[in-house]
Amino acid sequence: MQTLWLENNQISLRDVPQPHKLDEALIKIRKAGICSTDLELVKGYYPYMGILGHEFVGEVLEANDASWIGQRVVGEINVVCNQCEQCLNGRPTHCENRTVLGIINRDGTFAEYTTLPLANLYRVPASIPDEMAVFTEPLAAALEIQQQVQVHPTDRVLLIGAGRLGQLIAQTLALTGCDLYVVARHKHQQGLLKARGIRIISEDEIQPGKWDLVVEATGSQSGFSLARRAIRPRGTLVLKSTYKGEMNVNFSSIVVDEINIIGSRCCPFEPALRLMEAKQVDPTVLIDSEFSLGDALKAFEHAAKTGVLKVLVQP
Amino acid sequence: MQTLWLENNQISLRDVPQPHKLDEALIKIRKAGICSTDLELVKGYYPYMGILGHEFVGEVLEANDASWIGQRVVGEINVVCNQCEQCLNGRPTHCENRTVLGIINRDGTFAEYTTLPLANLYRVPASIPDEMAVFTEPLAAALEIQQQVQVHPTDRVLLIGAGRLGQLIAQTLALTGCDLYVVARHKHQQGLLKARGIRIISEDEIQPGKWDLVVEATGSQSGFSLARRAIRPRGTLVLKSTYKGEMNVNFSSIVVDEINIIGSRCCPFEPALRLMEAKQVDPTVLIDSEFSLGDALKAFEHAAKTGVLKVLVQP
Amino acid sequence: MQTLWLENNQISLRDVPQPHKLDEALIKIRKAGICSTDLELVKGYYPYMGILGHEFVGEVLEANDASWIGQRVVGEINVVCNQCEQCLNGRPTHCENRTVLGIINRDGTFAEYTTLPLANLYRVPASIPDEMAVFTEPLAAALEIQQQVQVHPTDRVLLIGAGRLGQLIAQTLALTGCDLYVVARHKHQQGLLKARGIRIISEDEIQPGKWDLVVEATGSQSGFSLARRAIRPRGTLVLKSTYKGEMNVNFSSIVVDEINIIGSRCCPFEPALRLMEAKQVDPTVLIDSEFSLGDALKAFEHAAKTGVLKVLVQP
Amino acid sequence: MQTLWLENNQISLRDVPQPHKLDEALIKIRKAGICSTDLELVKGYYPYMGILGHEFVGEVLEANDASWIGQRVVGEINVVCNQCEQCLNGRPTHCENRTVLGIINRDGTFAEYTTLPLANLYRVPASIPDEMAVFTEPLAAALEIQQQVQVHPTDRVLLIGAGRLGQLIAQTLALTGCDLYVVARHKHQQGLLKARGIRIISEDEIQPGKWDLVVEATGSQSGFSLARRAIRPRGTLVLKSTYKGEMNVNFSSIVVDEINIIGSRCCPFEPALRLMEAKQVDPTVLIDSEFSLGDALKAFEHAAKTGVLKVLVQP
Repeated sequence: MQTLWLENNQISLRDVPQPHKLDEALIKIRKAGICSTDLELVKGYYPYMGILGHEFVGEVLEANDASWIGQRVVGEINVVCNQCEQCLNGRPTHCENRTVLGIINRDGTFAEYTTLPLANLYRVPASIPDEMAVFTEPLAAALEIQQQVQVHPTDRVLLIGAGRLGQLIAQTLALTGCDLYVVARHKHQQGLLKARGIRIISEDEIQPGKWDLVVEATGSQSGFSLARRAIRPRGTLVLKSTYKGEMNVNFSSIVVDEINIIGSRCCPFEPALRLMEAKQVDPTVLIDSEFSLGDALKAFEHAAKTGVLKVLVQP
Repeated sequence: MQTLWLENNQISLRDVPQPHKLDEALIKIRKAGICSTDLELVKGYYPYMGILGHEFVGEVLEANDASWIGQRVVGEINVVCNQCEQCLNGRPTHCENRTVLGIINRDGTFAEYTTLPLANLYRVPASIPDEMAVFTEPLAAALEIQQQVQVHPTDRVLLIGAGRLGQLIAQTLALTGCDLYVVARHKHQQGLLKARGIRIISEDEIQPGKWDLVVEATGSQSGFSLARRAIRPRGTLVLKSTYKGEMNVNFSSIVVDEINIIGSRCCPFEPALRLMEAKQVDPTVLIDSEFSLGDALKAFEHAAKTGVLKVLVQP
Repeated sequence: MQTLWLENNQISLRDVPQPHKLDEALIKIRKAGICSTDLELVKGYYPYMGILGHEFVGEVLEANDASWIGQRVVGEINVVCNQCEQCLNGRPTHCENRTVLGIINRDGTFAEYTTLPLANLYRVPASIPDEMAVFTEPLAAALEIQQQVQVHPTDRVLLIGAGRLGQLIAQTLALTGCDLYVVARHKHQQGLLKARGIRIISEDEIQPGKWDLVVEATGSQSGFSLARRAIRPRGTLVLKSTYKGEMNVNFSSIVVDEINIIGSRCCPFEPALRLMEAKQVDPTVLIDSEFSLGDALKAFEHAAKTGVLKVLVQP
Repeated sequence: MQTLWLENNQISLRDVPQPHKLDEALIKIRKAGICSTDLELVKGYYPYMGILGHEFVGEVLEANDASWIGQRVVGEINVVCNQCEQCLNGRPTHCENRTVLGIINRDGTFAEYTTLPLANLYRVPASIPDEMAVFTEPLAAALEIQQQVQVHPTDRVLLIGAGRLGQLIAQTLALTGCDLYVVARHKHQQGLLKARGIRIISEDEIQPGKWDLVVEATGSQSGFSLARRAIRPRGTLVLKSTYKGEMNVNFSSIVVDEINIIGSRCCPFEPALRLMEAKQVDPTVLIDSEFSLGDALKAFEHAAKTGVLKVLVQP
């Protein structure tokens, strides 16, 4: 089958045999999305070799449980052992033996087919079209903030960054009723937010030391510095991006202001599916363009351009 | 001015002088809503004498700060001292010296005019019509749940009761992405929930000991018993109603299952206004009927009927 | 072997065969303690039939793992399945399939021998004598408060009740540095607290609505009423006792004051062993008397007297 | 009066007029302690000019309230406005207008006299001698950890650093019953811990990714790196030191492991006084030596030596 293969910081189209695993479902990919993590993997952010891609919607072709065959599904990306200390303490996304779809030791979804254990799959309600369902994984990642941190309806919340993930975070944080403002660099990003009634703020309007909760979603040193400046004493600063290399942090000021910095990654898929089914979020507004799998190299080139939001790939 | 007056468990129309307080704004009532608490006050739930009513939208006629005059406003019902231990510890709704609009030592809103300090008032955005703005207070009360308790997107949440407050709680809990089911007795209540994609559950479908969070919004012994049965060990049971008399509770079983029971009352108004402005909730579907202030006695009679949701009164 | 047997609300000495379970260690009991729960079980608080007793220190005589043989041990009382939803979510003490030593479907420790899985056992450090080690279970129960609730060093904490469990709660709460006062009825109870520098308060000195955290350890309606009166708005009231029958609770006032009521039961044993080893607590001051197993009926009679603290039984 | 004066990164003895402030008590210093922060201030960690010193015990000579005169006192170091947003939200130690004794815009305690508002003072119980009372401030700082973070009795806790503050943190964390291990570099530091039954661990024994809570109290990059390595996914890493310059932090790994980093500074004094009065901690074991105020330069020179713990200065 045709795939997008990553090796030595190079992506290429490659033909590989169709996968087959006894204990996993065989899934025909219907659509896959390009995530910032994919772009970072290409740059060498993590030493991965294999088929890229972890955002997808597909159809189950083969499974040990016949009731799944023919179902339209999305799938959680962490395949876990259920036996290590992390799993037994309710932290399966931190499984010590996990493989991760298209990221750690497991071929991904820029391919005609992929495999996942049935335990990872969720049926997609009929009212959620493919081009929405393909956002389940990043939408779940956005919701991990509320899974980790109590967002009070009265909180003053600043979101820095309105790219692929930032837009989804903005949509979900808005549902809490919190006093949300977003720093969005690009006109197109700003337009999407305004269309949903979400307020934009420019950097120089941001009052320092006044925000209860700040979400950093740019992955840049300048984004972190702005977040640090904005947060109030004893406030919570959520790191919600990938960061290249190391950040410089003034720990003495973190100590003096007793700031809480918390990293945030993945969340289960069901809440994301529920919010899409209830039309409380609409990730499809992020779609920039769709390419065939044969044009995946062009798709990646396009996705890497400044300000481009979601690029989809269809096998 | 004409008012609805409560005295000795009797309501009557009464003419009283127009209020005037040096330190408070004079507000012309545009619409007021009948709340279950009003009905309970009539039954003697709390020893109040004076003008009833605390849910309203109005227009500022007089104020020390001229910028407020002519503004359409809603108002928080607790008038607080800012000096007692509760106020100084960030719990102003628990002010030890508070008066409460139409509930404790302060005339309410079933009247042509009322007064409140400017600090209690919030401007109503133009996009929120009067018949929506009048729900700000009960919607804020619904949001107090999220203000007190972290509702995880993955939580299994059971709401018992889908009356005036229950409907608003259902709409706001649904925004968290949680796995929400509602026990709703009346067809009309069920219909409103289904129209928003919120799932109904019948009592005999409720798995005992399996729900992370249960919200009791019926105010009845049977509602509490159901809530107690449903909650999982170490789960959280939110009391969100008024309760006549005393409940019987088996504390040994609360101890054995380490249940957390938490009372929940008021919340600031701004999150409620934000959610209405963003059209993420729609309380107007609860409106049953509207009466003139002159027909307020009929309005109360109607509001007390089983299954009737919101009854509005217009001076 | 000789045992203290409970059947139909009657205790009696009974000879039964020595236990033997393939998957469990055989333990020779060195000392066992009488707990209020034992007294309640005799009164029919819970429908248990079998050998009573769950507080013990013993010596391993037989075990599948030879390294345990000859070890002096204490043992957690919940024997769990590690497979149900509660176990898999980090709540093993709430296992849906649990048996409980001397309480639910498992013979207890007022006997010459008992059995428990090795997973339940903890070696007792040499510096902890038998008469101290026998307190590991109730001391762990006391520590469950800190396991569930964050006790801030600045919290004003009221403990109501200074009996068997109350004394241990007082000793452990004092270690948090909190502003602790204890309601103790009996002179002897007061004396033990004063000897450790723990402050006594009389009921009429208790300021209502001023305490951040109240622990109810009397199991009585009057104790609960006092706790309710003492707690501040949004304060936490921990239920730490067994309660006969049902309590009457005014839920409206719980709602108005947004009180948090939380039941509290068991905790793992290791923290209790650590605190005893470090001599930060001393439960032996609670010992009233010790009886031989042959005098267990007298021991129970004595333990039931007002103001009597810990009665030990030695096979 | 004689003082130790800091100016342009230079300390010197200087004679200045005795202070006098209408709204503050005049305090005669009985003993003062040298803190790591003092040493950092000399190095230019913060641009302070004036009398150094913030740990002290003294006697009130003059006060508006006569009941304080002659009292032996300690004093909280933050002098606050009670009017800014931080003060009104229960965060007075983060007052936006604060001065800080010997640190920010307020002369300190290496002097014959100092002044503080009565609101900052606490009477020292007779059972606490001067050489213990002088530790109230750093002991309170240690307790801020429990004020911010819930330390569960079952938590595996690693403390990195056993210097002046580390020793006090070790003593107070041990009181929680948690599973505590301390990384202590110097033999003398190790000896003090062992004498209290607190366990030492060497760096190479520390299992990576296994600790629920890690407290970093070295202020060094290597200390932070070790802390980062030790903490488990979703664990909490408390920063409890001053840090020179900026730290390099790999944020991507913080995100992947969803680590919580929290800065920690000051706490109210009363819990510290309570623990010393109850003899649950003993800070006096940290005392290395005492110098007269005239020898304060020698005292600072000595305090700066590797491994030296508390150096006291007596006017």
